[in-house]
Amino acid sequence: MAVRAAVAGASGYAGGEVLRLLLGHPGVEIGTLTGHSNAGQTLGSLQPHLLPLADRVLEPTTAEALAGHDVVFLALPHGQSAAVAERLGDDVLVIDMGADFRLKDASDWETFYGSPHAGTWPYGLPELPGARAALEGAKRIAVPGCYPTAVSLALFPAYAAGLAEPEAVIVAATGTSGAGKALKPHLLGSEVMGSMSPYGVGGGHRHTPEMMQNLGTVAGEPVTVSFTPTLAPMARGILATCSARAKRGTTAEDVRAAYTKAYADEPFVHLLPEGRWPATASVYGSNAVQVQVAYDAAAGRVIAISAIDNLTKGTAGGAVQSMNIALGLPEDTGLSTIGVAP
Amino acid sequence: MAVRAAVAGASGYAGGEVLRLLLGHPGVEIGTLTGHSNAGQTLGSLQPHLLPLADRVLEPTTAEALAGHDVVFLALPHGQSAAVAERLGDDVLVIDMGADFRLKDASDWETFYGSPHAGTWPYGLPELPGARAALEGAKRIAVPGCYPTAVSLALFPAYAAGLAEPEAVIVAATGTSGAGKALKPHLLGSEVMGSMSPYGVGGGHRHTPEMMQNLGTVAGEPVTVSFTPTLAPMARGILATCSARAKRGTTAEDVRAAYTKAYADEPFVHLLPEGRWPATASVYGSNAVQVQVAYDAAAGRVIAISAIDNLTKGTAGGAVQSMNIALGLPEDTGLSTIGVAP
Amino acid sequence: MAVRAAVAGASGYAGGEVLRLLLGHPGVEIGTLTGHSNAGQTLGSLQPHLLPLADRVLEPTTAEALAGHDVVFLALPHGQSAAVAERLGDDVLVIDMGADFRLKDASDWETFYGSPHAGTWPYGLPELPGARAALEGAKRIAVPGCYPTAVSLALFPAYAAGLAEPEAVIVAATGTSGAGKALKPHLLGSEVMGSMSPYGVGGGHRHTPEMMQNLGTVAGEPVTVSFTPTLAPMARGILATCSARAKRGTTAEDVRAAYTKAYADEPFVHLLPEGRWPATASVYGSNAVQVQVAYDAAAGRVIAISAIDNLTKGTAGGAVQSMNIALGLPEDTGLSTIGVAP
Amino acid sequence: MAVRAAVAGASGYAGGEVLRLLLGHPGVEIGTLTGHSNAGQTLGSLQPHLLPLADRVLEPTTAEALAGHDVVFLALPHGQSAAVAERLGDDVLVIDMGADFRLKDASDWETFYGSPHAGTWPYGLPELPGARAALEGAKRIAVPGCYPTAVSLALFPAYAAGLAEPEAVIVAATGTSGAGKALKPHLLGSEVMGSMSPYGVGGGHRHTPEMMQNLGTVAGEPVTVSFTPTLAPMARGILATCSARAKRGTTAEDVRAAYTKAYADEPFVHLLPEGRWPATASVYGSNAVQVQVAYDAAAGRVIAISAIDNLTKGTAGGAVQSMNIALGLPEDTGLSTIGVAP
Repeated sequence: MAVRAAVAGASGYAGGEVLRLLLGHPGVEIGTLTGHSNAGQTLGSLQPHLLPLADRVLEPTTAEALAGHDVVFLALPHGQSAAVAERLGDDVLVIDMGADFRLKDASDWETFYGSPHAGTWPYGLPELPGARAALEGAKRIAVPGCYPTAVSLALFPAYAAGLAEPEAVIVAATGTSGAGKALKPHLLGSEVMGSMSPYGVGGGHRHTPEMMQNLGTVAGEPVTVSFTPTLAPMARGILATCSARAKRGTTAEDVRAAYTKAYADEPFVHLLPEGRWPATASVYGSNAVQVQVAYDAAAGRVIAISAIDNLTKGTAGGAVQSMNIALGLPEDTGLSTIGVAP
Repeated sequence: MAVRAAVAGASGYAGGEVLRLLLGHPGVEIGTLTGHSNAGQTLGSLQPHLLPLADRVLEPTTAEALAGHDVVFLALPHGQSAAVAERLGDDVLVIDMGADFRLKDASDWETFYGSPHAGTWPYGLPELPGARAALEGAKRIAVPGCYPTAVSLALFPAYAAGLAEPEAVIVAATGTSGAGKALKPHLLGSEVMGSMSPYGVGGGHRHTPEMMQNLGTVAGEPVTVSFTPTLAPMARGILATCSARAKRGTTAEDVRAAYTKAYADEPFVHLLPEGRWPATASVYGSNAVQVQVAYDAAAGRVIAISAIDNLTKGTAGGAVQSMNIALGLPEDTGLSTIGVAP
Repeated sequence: MAVRAAVAGASGYAGGEVLRLLLGHPGVEIGTLTGHSNAGQTLGSLQPHLLPLADRVLEPTTAEALAGHDVVFLALPHGQSAAVAERLGDDVLVIDMGADFRLKDASDWETFYGSPHAGTWPYGLPELPGARAALEGAKRIAVPGCYPTAVSLALFPAYAAGLAEPEAVIVAATGTSGAGKALKPHLLGSEVMGSMSPYGVGGGHRHTPEMMQNLGTVAGEPVTVSFTPTLAPMARGILATCSARAKRGTTAEDVRAAYTKAYADEPFVHLLPEGRWPATASVYGSNAVQVQVAYDAAAGRVIAISAIDNLTKGTAGGAVQSMNIALGLPEDTGLSTIGVAP
Repeated sequence: MAVRAAVAGASGYAGGEVLRLLLGHPGVEIGTLTGHSNAGQTLGSLQPHLLPLADRVLEPTTAEALAGHDVVFLALPHGQSAAVAERLGDDVLVIDMGADFRLKDASDWETFYGSPHAGTWPYGLPELPGARAALEGAKRIAVPGCYPTAVSLALFPAYAAGLAEPEAVIVAATGTSGAGKALKPHLLGSEVMGSMSPYGVGGGHRHTPEMMQNLGTVAGEPVTVSFTPTLAPMARGILATCSARAKRGTTAEDVRAAYTKAYADEPFVHLLPEGRWPATASVYGSNAVQVQVAYDAAAGRVIAISAIDNLTKGTAGGAVQSMNIALGLPEDTGLSTIGVAP
């Protein structure tokens, strides 16, 4: 019997993507959809690509509207999830696609978000060591940030194998959907097309502590992260170029072996054959992750690169993957490793 | 029991798209894949988005390699399909995604293609009046051209209802995948990005007689077509802007009624509510068609606009849809009306 | 001695482009720059590409701030130019890049803009028959709309030579800068990239009566215009595909001769050699116009296609060209026919 | 009196760009243009944006064709410049936009290019300490690579001031024109649009030793470089994100001061005000460089980011700038710091 799922924040990009995936999920029936300023409008006018839901009308985001579902996906601005989640029963699976419950360290939260810490929920990146166990049967899930998903999957095998010094340097390019549907001048098509530009440079991006948390946990020691996000002229995709100095004595074979081992049995992570490199186009609309790694002997660094679709594996696909685990369904139900290309 | 399908020309865009769709088709098992200059290579190096088929090796395109399948999709340069099809048995369903068997009039073929006419197969645009009956149980199917698909679906209801004069004016924009993977300077990313340009202007495009054939059949009288294709800076999608002078006495209500009636029961064609207009992004990767129509009283013209994904509904999706009909499967098996957006 | 020019609305795309051109104009000194909501900000934060003006601060748009200049460019929302212009002296050259003074027919204005007609100024499309004489020494200039510029230059030679029936069908694609810097959801990069979509279909676009005015004047009889604008995934450029049924007896040679004659001496209009077609990339950032024409004998239509940069020849370049004429400078001063490509 | 300049390789992107700039250079008259496979064709068919040169016909690239000019620009595949240059007199200024004469270390050349070293010419990056003196009156100039231009200008002030450890980590995104007009599948528009992908990962890119040479010379000690280039979905532009661990005791003020000092008098390098970041769109078609720098205290790194137009400052603009110095002209003659945006 299908579980019944509601989506709060159905008019945004994360909400739209989770609906796109749930429409193809054989075990889910789509229930209430809510919005804020768009309440009362049809989904057809807001998400015209979701043809089967075109006539659905958005309700306001209230606990009452979201009640009576087995699963509730929250795609809300940060800081709003706790109040909604509190009013949903403990038997409801609540999956937060926002940031509120990702960080373990309250002071990190307060430093980067400037508000009181709401708590920590099981972390929905199943590929991380130990993560699946925490998700099985969970009733609350914090979906990782899109950048931390790409970065953690690129780098954790090197740290898990003890091959990298704890100072990671990361430059990542994201498609504009990563910034959401916000009406800001720098997100206009005229500004974006033909332009690459960085933002949040110098340690200020809110995803930085989440990366440090993930990598530090795997490494067993604190890992500093220098993270520079850049905005690329494309709608979807993250390409994360990550590197760290190799620990003394590391060889190219060690590096390859660590990644081969880490991803031997992962259904969504594809360690590419040597000589081929990730491309965001290859994972467009898919939950797959392309990973490649190299050892630069001259520079003494491990270079690990991943490509994901920021809205799929980076947000809504990761959410559905974790939902499947929590509900005891096959992990890949309703999820594809096939990109839409070219 | 699944039917077994082979794809000839699996390294190109049409071949890749039919594989993307067949991977999600519950009634099809993917058999032999062939290529020409790429024979011997893995699909992973040629179509890196098709992760589940990454290790498949392309065989040379020969009748022997294609034998032993229930369905054979041909994605070959025009002029090559007949020789392959002849050597496949009459019990094999052969679906030609090229142009060879689309035209009924041999002299049209010879004028536009400069070679002898190979014949005419049942035409795989199920939404055209009478088309489904010809596809049921068929063993040979000619998949329509991408432009004729978009244009015929935009305009035929006006002609079927006798509302339009038989002189259609069409300007269509296509994504670059419509030109295939050919290594031509004008298809380089550097040339394409930021540029709109026409080609084949003045009646020379090979899809022109196919549009005339479809519209003329529906209208019951010859329809001239002025067709200008343009290349747009996007990978996928066709936006077809079509118009014709309205017949005397036509009203806006007549026009609306004709389209409402034509598409009331079509699973893939979505006549948009008044006030909304098609966008290629809304049908990205989907088999859906968005159609809208307006009556411009001042100019005295019916304006009909459609958006399709040129590789999905315009090629491979149309092919699978017709295959489903030929095999007696539900018409939408393995096909989606959900786009990947934004 | 240089004339001193002010720009009202310097933070928008039209204002930025006129500044880009004036910076390279040897006869102009840039004076006051004004803005509305951006008054008080530096131009460097609003138009970071205009490096030499980075430290200029925008003043509020008032007649006082604009006083004391020889030339004032108005890049204001429609309906606002008249009030500003009235308070500038009759000896000041006022160039309106908005719509307010383009139309001769007050009822057309009221129908399409819904407000009282402000008047009619000399029309800044020098290539139109008779237009230059009206611009020489003028103190008020109405810069044409971007679409009417592209469309009029594509079609007027056919009408001037009496070769085309008075029913023009036009489909044009524009870059997103044509919609200005407005914060609207459909102009976000995420929505625009990868998508073609129409708008203002069925006769409603405000540039329609301006096209009818231009073509009708040249033809000597009313010309109806069916105009469909489409939004293309690029920042700049208009490709206008225009056609009309050829008058009886028209030949391909007649058509070619008409265009050759019309553009023999025009510095900015380049009638391409036969066999080559316009591309917006070729005129990126330039004041050039690429035009090509074909006679489709089967459809009985003249097809004329033009490419311009909507911000340059379509707005600010056209404005500077007309300013040059009004001031008695060589018409191409400060203007280039060289595009930035690829 | 104008100098007379020839361009060898006029059909490619670098050749086209140098022609675009020379057309606006008041001290240069454009002489012979040559090509290889395109010899005999008009420039109008190959570089349609260069309208004033449309009727010029390409000659074959021979010393004879190039003789009799004051300046010869070489835009040839690497390995071909020496043979041409040898046959041009010592009194001719030869400017090589290829790689052949950039590296001082013959073994570096041989390692990365696999052919004998041709020699070393004065290096055309005037902003580097000491570079201008070597260019004054020079008769041979090696134009830097596009990536080394962007990277050296981003990082050298930190090394000149002794603030950075000699291990630089660089991730740069380039527009597709950086790969030239080569007909390779991965450069097709269909592949490029919507995709970010790395290449030459792990130390193999040929620009790496050039960066090491530049930074090491400034630092006074060897600097290792971990360089990852990525291909971005845009035609032009390089965004170089560069970082290095800060030397002990470095403060944010030290870093700011070093960059302020380095670029106080540079006409083309614009150190942005704090809080603003480079964007490739801002330097589109211009010879300007946008630079910004930050000190990430938590990660202990200096982050320096630059944006250039790879074809202008990164190739042809840098060439013209160096030519101006060599000829004793004002350094910015014919060069602009104004981008074409949006």
